[in-house]
Amino acid sequence: MTDLRQRALDLDAADELAPFRGRVVITDPDVRYLDGNSLGRLPVATRDRLRTFVDEEWGGDLVEGWSRWIELPASVGDELGAALLGVGTGQTVVCDSVTVNLHKLALAAVRRDPARTVVVTDDDNFPTDRFVLEEVARLAGSEVRVVHTDIDEGVSVDAVRAALGPDVALVSLSHTAYRSGALAPVAEIDRLAHEAGALTLWDLSHSVGSVPVDLSTADLAVGCTYKYVNGGPGAPAFLWVRPGLAEELRNPVPGWFGSASQFAMDAAYTPAPGVRRFLTGTPPVSGLVAVEEGVRLLADAGLSRLRAKSVALTSYLVELADAWLADHGVRVASPRDPVRRGGHVVLEHPEAWQLAQELRARKVLPDFREPDRIRLGPAPLYTRFVDVHDAMAELRDALVTGSHLRHPAARAVVT
Amino acid sequence: MTDLRQRALDLDAADELAPFRGRVVITDPDVRYLDGNSLGRLPVATRDRLRTFVDEEWGGDLVEGWSRWIELPASVGDELGAALLGVGTGQTVVCDSVTVNLHKLALAAVRRDPARTVVVTDDDNFPTDRFVLEEVARLAGSEVRVVHTDIDEGVSVDAVRAALGPDVALVSLSHTAYRSGALAPVAEIDRLAHEAGALTLWDLSHSVGSVPVDLSTADLAVGCTYKYVNGGPGAPAFLWVRPGLAEELRNPVPGWFGSASQFAMDAAYTPAPGVRRFLTGTPPVSGLVAVEEGVRLLADAGLSRLRAKSVALTSYLVELADAWLADHGVRVASPRDPVRRGGHVVLEHPEAWQLAQELRARKVLPDFREPDRIRLGPAPLYTRFVDVHDAMAELRDALVTGSHLRHPAARAVVT
Repeated sequence: MTDLRQRALDLDAADELAPFRGRVVITDPDVRYLDGNSLGRLPVATRDRLRTFVDEEWGGDLVEGWSRWIELPASVGDELGAALLGVGTGQTVVCDSVTVNLHKLALAAVRRDPARTVVVTDDDNFPTDRFVLEEVARLAGSEVRVVHTDIDEGVSVDAVRAALGPDVALVSLSHTAYRSGALAPVAEIDRLAHEAGALTLWDLSHSVGSVPVDLSTADLAVGCTYKYVNGGPGAPAFLWVRPGLAEELRNPVPGWFGSASQFAMDAAYTPAPGVRRFLTGTPPVSGLVAVEEGVRLLADAGLSRLRAKSVALTSYLVELADAWLADHGVRVASPRDPVRRGGHVVLEHPEAWQLAQELRARKVLPDFREPDRIRLGPAPLYTRFVDVHDAMAELRDALVTGSHLRHPAARAVVT
Repeated sequence: MTDLRQRALDLDAADELAPFRGRVVITDPDVRYLDGNSLGRLPVATRDRLRTFVDEEWGGDLVEGWSRWIELPASVGDELGAALLGVGTGQTVVCDSVTVNLHKLALAAVRRDPARTVVVTDDDNFPTDRFVLEEVARLAGSEVRVVHTDIDEGVSVDAVRAALGPDVALVSLSHTAYRSGALAPVAEIDRLAHEAGALTLWDLSHSVGSVPVDLSTADLAVGCTYKYVNGGPGAPAFLWVRPGLAEELRNPVPGWFGSASQFAMDAAYTPAPGVRRFLTGTPPVSGLVAVEEGVRLLADAGLSRLRAKSVALTSYLVELADAWLADHGVRVASPRDPVRRGGHVVLEHPEAWQLAQELRARKVLPDFREPDRIRLGPAPLYTRFVDVHDAMAELRDALVTGSHLRHPAARAVVT
């Protein structure tokens, strides 16, 4: 056994969060799962809760279940906000997808003041975000001002500053960059935006449940629940609006769940108080109960402990990459300072696609991102240091033996 | 036993669809469930499929499951379209909620031609529809022209005709009216709208899976899957676009699932071919597999047999209402001609709220709609004639004894 593997085993033995690995379903213990940042594992409590929900609540309570289910978008939002965003009650709801929530909040922001309709974002923002923001600006008869981000460095404060002006309604960026894992300086950008009279909208998809974020200076946020929150594939997203701001905004998709008197079937729409006005249609109840269980599991672990372990896991991963892979042309394309790094690490190599295929063949599940990036997200809730060690050892072995070159150098559709 | 109850038992004995009752979960056989038009029952196959999906697919395949899941919005859409809408492949997708789908299609319609931005709808349309359409028109700098509908009669062709003009982009109505069950004359309204240069958008929520609809003259449609399609509470909705039209429309919520090259992470959004461009964010997979099972079960039963049994059930219900309840002030507020009636029947009575409470106490689950309407939806897949008989006998007994008057004459929040 190498010294480095023994260190991994020692770190696992000392890990306070180690027992949480027993609280997720692991069907094949030989799989080293390093893609919890794409789709989190299934919590045991969620598996059981979904059975109860399906068999007893839907199957047994039938339509009467709605007397409880109807509160879930707000109550699960409150739990998520308290455990993972550090915000008070009545500010967060769980509903729709990140895409739809971004559309609602960004469109509300550009309609707030007819003199301010420009949206600022960066060219490294997640594609859905850029696509949605472009169309939102077009709907307002305006445009998106796209600033350039060096993807290894993360969003540039200077570039954002230069893009601001009296026509800007909104600055919308990702907190953790999906390609590099770089963290954006939220407070600094919030301050700049506010000085220029603009609102800020943060996409927390690659942060929530892994990286704490201080929203005390922010205006709006969205994020997904199927990564570190372990809500399951396509689980409903969340949206957050700072206290007092919702009343200044119109939901462009005013559905019955966001109206003040849902079952009065009124002639005119009156928005519900606060953040609830951003609910739309009937919410997916099985997704909501899965998010509730996912949030509760993370709350048990505690976000500060999760972040501490995440930093230790990714730092260990970077150390192995430097020691083993640098000589084989692998470059760490994430910030080396853990304070500036989210929960995943990106390794750049010209044969990244083939290496990702080879890792899968070796029961290591990574993520691949165009054009030449392997993304490794060791979810602190259930990933062991020894998983990181063994995954990196497989990657080293592939590079040393060239075994990855047996895979065609093609691309495939894998989320 | 009354003659009428014997007739119910005879009708059940002769019912070709009777075996389908065994294919849904029934936890309490004493419950007479007449609210399948609000939330359909849990199919046995869906219960089993959801277990497999959660335990084996999410829990076991993890992120690799996406290689199959990613096709579900289109493949389930195709199955739903073929079995329940009578349309070909590549025209229907399952995603988001009815509210969000209505927003996307209606906003696309009003942005198609700057000279045509008015939306025509009626004052009996479902509240979410009216709210969304109003905001869509406002986003286009326009307005909604709301025509009056006598709720017992259903939408008036003359009123729609009078509202049309060269400024109208879209006529959006419900096929089956949620309060009365009245069916709209689709072909006639499509013809009028097209003569005036407008598109039509039909909300099929209260029809799909129970009432056939001929979309050969229509342009756009949306509908929900948690009523007769039995997809579960908040299951994803569908949207349909007639062949050739999608290419003329922009999705105002352009997410990565609707882009032509989802994982290329391109700089600019290029819409996917055809109806797929109306997908948005990551779809809820557990909801999609539930809709798939729900559609397959209805396909096994066959829509023409379902409609024939639905007509027989609602006609029998109307007959009992006339025979037993008319003298107690109950009025049948649905069309008496079954050709003009959808899958539910509405009974009007000043004490409707109290009667609904009393029925629940007697293990009959109806639906209540403001201000004075009991809505009874005998889903033909699993409702027996004897259930209708016994539910109506309970209602008669409540009226004869006045037992419903023990409930407070208040309203409550029940979907």
